[in-house]
Amino acid sequence: MTAPELTGDSLIAGRRVTGTGDRLHAIAPATGETLEPGYSQIDVDQLREATRAAAEAFESFQALAPEAHAAFLDDVADEIDALGEDLIVRAVQETGLPVARLTGERTRTTNQLRMFAGVVRRGAFRGVRVDPAIPDREPLPRADIRQRKVPLGPVAVFGASNFPLAFSTAGGDTASALAAGCPVVFKAHSSHPGTSELVAGAIARVVAAHGLHPGVFSHIFGPGRTVGQALVSDPEIQAVGFTGSRSGGLSLVQAAQARPVPIPVYAEMSSVNPVFVFPGALEGDVAELASGYVTSALGSSGQLCTQPGSVFVPSGERGDAFVAAVSSAVDEAIGQTMLSPAIADAWRSGAETRDAHASVAARGSDGEGPNAPAPVIHATDLEAFVSNRVLQEEIFGAASLIVRYDDVAELPAAAARLEGQLTATLHIADDDADAARALLPVLERKAGRILANGWPTGVEVGHAIVHGGPFPATSDSRTTSVGSLAIERFLRPVAYQNLPDALLPEPLKDANPWGVPRLVDGLPEGEA
Amino acid sequence: MTAPELTGDSLIAGRRVTGTGDRLHAIAPATGETLEPGYSQIDVDQLREATRAAAEAFESFQALAPEAHAAFLDDVADEIDALGEDLIVRAVQETGLPVARLTGERTRTTNQLRMFAGVVRRGAFRGVRVDPAIPDREPLPRADIRQRKVPLGPVAVFGASNFPLAFSTAGGDTASALAAGCPVVFKAHSSHPGTSELVAGAIARVVAAHGLHPGVFSHIFGPGRTVGQALVSDPEIQAVGFTGSRSGGLSLVQAAQARPVPIPVYAEMSSVNPVFVFPGALEGDVAELASGYVTSALGSSGQLCTQPGSVFVPSGERGDAFVAAVSSAVDEAIGQTMLSPAIADAWRSGAETRDAHASVAARGSDGEGPNAPAPVIHATDLEAFVSNRVLQEEIFGAASLIVRYDDVAELPAAAARLEGQLTATLHIADDDADAARALLPVLERKAGRILANGWPTGVEVGHAIVHGGPFPATSDSRTTSVGSLAIERFLRPVAYQNLPDALLPEPLKDANPWGVPRLVDGLPEGEA
Repeated sequence: MTAPELTGDSLIAGRRVTGTGDRLHAIAPATGETLEPGYSQIDVDQLREATRAAAEAFESFQALAPEAHAAFLDDVADEIDALGEDLIVRAVQETGLPVARLTGERTRTTNQLRMFAGVVRRGAFRGVRVDPAIPDREPLPRADIRQRKVPLGPVAVFGASNFPLAFSTAGGDTASALAAGCPVVFKAHSSHPGTSELVAGAIARVVAAHGLHPGVFSHIFGPGRTVGQALVSDPEIQAVGFTGSRSGGLSLVQAAQARPVPIPVYAEMSSVNPVFVFPGALEGDVAELASGYVTSALGSSGQLCTQPGSVFVPSGERGDAFVAAVSSAVDEAIGQTMLSPAIADAWRSGAETRDAHASVAARGSDGEGPNAPAPVIHATDLEAFVSNRVLQEEIFGAASLIVRYDDVAELPAAAARLEGQLTATLHIADDDADAARALLPVLERKAGRILANGWPTGVEVGHAIVHGGPFPATSDSRTTSVGSLAIERFLRPVAYQNLPDALLPEPLKDANPWGVPRLVDGLPEGEA
Repeated sequence: MTAPELTGDSLIAGRRVTGTGDRLHAIAPATGETLEPGYSQIDVDQLREATRAAAEAFESFQALAPEAHAAFLDDVADEIDALGEDLIVRAVQETGLPVARLTGERTRTTNQLRMFAGVVRRGAFRGVRVDPAIPDREPLPRADIRQRKVPLGPVAVFGASNFPLAFSTAGGDTASALAAGCPVVFKAHSSHPGTSELVAGAIARVVAAHGLHPGVFSHIFGPGRTVGQALVSDPEIQAVGFTGSRSGGLSLVQAAQARPVPIPVYAEMSSVNPVFVFPGALEGDVAELASGYVTSALGSSGQLCTQPGSVFVPSGERGDAFVAAVSSAVDEAIGQTMLSPAIADAWRSGAETRDAHASVAARGSDGEGPNAPAPVIHATDLEAFVSNRVLQEEIFGAASLIVRYDDVAELPAAAARLEGQLTATLHIADDDADAARALLPVLERKAGRILANGWPTGVEVGHAIVHGGPFPATSDSRTTSVGSLAIERFLRPVAYQNLPDALLPEPLKDANPWGVPRLVDGLPEGEA
């Protein structure tokens, strides 16, 4: 079961490198079968080749003219699309996710690269500001000062298990770092190495075809505790992108802070994505509401960062009807294959713990294969929920918790007790507006994205999206890991004072040869 | 020597609070005299009153309409100006700085507040982005998603010793936090408590006059090791601004990272602000160049964040002439009073250490009073400099190091060995352009501001300035603590998906009632 193009090697600055460590195999979660090839694990010396090459590549890569830079991103998108069925077939094998989901995820991944190509062409991300000299100002003349944002330098990106394409090799972290002008050293997730190798090969081919320094992109396999930690500690690395567990993210944050020169870590970690169903919303179609919830909570076997892990439902008849509708749908649900045996085991352990703290509202049946546990919905009341941290913890997978409340007036205080979240959702009707308005300020402090009358799964890639949020949803609430704003994570401002025009970087020259949007004295250039 | 309006108390949410701790007095550095009143130190319970009030004030303060918000900032500026001579007199007593310097610093401080009023009126800092719904998109409709930046919440600001106005009570950190919509708990620097109390009183009067929640601003005196650390650890505090020593900044960073919910710390710490004199620049007026250097290095007794602590000068005759001109100017220089006895002691200790590692090129005479040590310029060569960390360390005060080099080709590698800096300066003539171009990429990675043919002291407050830089110049290279971009330190993005217009915050409503600049599908609203 080896696709001919898979080598089991790392790809360091354009060269295939066989690691000195053991070869690890992916396991097909649907069957438990071992997948070939085995992937050789590199050591810390081999890692240094990748980070050194990234550092060497930085100077030329960050200086690329916009069109060359954007065309590189566009061509990476095309090259990934050109992988065709081979990519989807391998991803299905390695993740157990359905073809339709993975095909959609590929579109999202390549569209995201193309979106960043557009961001690079437009150039607003360069943050150019010009404060012209005022030679006759009293008491002192004002110097000419110009500002732009420059890329931080080489970025380490860690692949996520649950999005083998959109949050992995060419996912949001890689795309936004490359768009910012940062070379990337990508550490593949061990659960989908073949998928990752295929995508990495596509990126490397485009790097070569464009004549870029090969250090712009490296793709490595290695143990997290040694190579992963060494990658974050490497002096050439200037920022880190990560999507995964809270423990995994926090260990990278710690390593980054312990460096002689600390660096930012953008870790997207855990979230239970509370959904608040208001009384008015239950006056409508309860069956449709329940169906939307079940689909969002159980889809992709619940393995989505924005899966609704808790839903707050009024007590009383209409709320009971909602719970009954949810229960009957979930009772008939069949477990879908989870991403890996380890993830299925962690899910079972979390669900068992919850059994001891909440009642079971509904439980489906086990699916086929070893890693498709029965989905489960628990129920509790608001008082138990707010006083019991265990009930507020994420269970990664097809589990969710219905929290019954008596009065919408209780919701703001309850929401204030929640940890930071990626999303918070309101289900409301017109009558609920005042109560919703009272809850909104709390949700703004707790979440990166607030939805009304929808479900948080299905993150749109665009300019206005925020996929981020207060700790522990992420390690840095000031950013997003999805959407065009994500590029700002990898930039910092530099000011240039009285530099001769010939020495100024292109976007700051008087003639503005790249045609980037600029602020002059704080206003868009051309405005009075 | 008590101005009638000074009470020696903290000001917590509009109330004068006498601390439970000892009363500490400022010392006039020029005379060693103890200044009245003594300032009572609060305890951690009293601190909690301030942080709780700030949290209570947050919801209404962050929702202020632009004009009310901007008028508040303008009026704070006016009220500080209205303190008149009393403020300057007290600041001179407490800091030993000259009247002209402090008068200029006050102008800078109040102009900065007015600049932020303009930023608030314009509204671009709200970062509004709208991606309208596309109901008929295939395969899935696109939701309406809108983004804005919201303030982080209450901010702790620590006053700096060296700028009793511009980096203290109503300085850049306070001004940018208030402009972002964040209440501020300000911990006064113990070396200029009276100056700080006067400014705090002005802010509090304007808070009251505008009918704002009094928790918008509190001003506290307390021991750093207990109250300062507790302030950073307080769960209500969401970000920290600090300007001071590396050890002080790092201890706050550590405290912030150790919290259950870590928060960002913007600490501006240490910098030697390298100046690279290229051979061509020495073909011009060497005396003027030397005079500019001496003025920048010795002004304000060298106690400026951007003081040029090292200057790289070519070997050979012209370089010798520069050093000779510097030496003769410094030999005649007289020590100016430093900010405090502790700072003068630390300077003496640093200068003595340097005596053991470099030769003395010039030394002035001690000034009047106990805390006005003789300025000193040391000299060394490039090889010694790059291999000796001691020579690269900042000596806060009127000391600087001339580093002689043989060939401009050596400069990029030497600069790459430097730590992160606030500024890097080039002195160049036309002939130096190629050599300067080779050095620039290194300087961009090392510094927040790059100057040509000027001196780094005298930081312009504007839209394009960057007063920041890579660690250890600051704890977060992605920002600036001076200029309008500083507001972004206290903001985070939130997205709103499919919210009814009535529930959207004002800047996101269809009608855009605040008239803020917005991006629609990534382009300025109104552009195609």
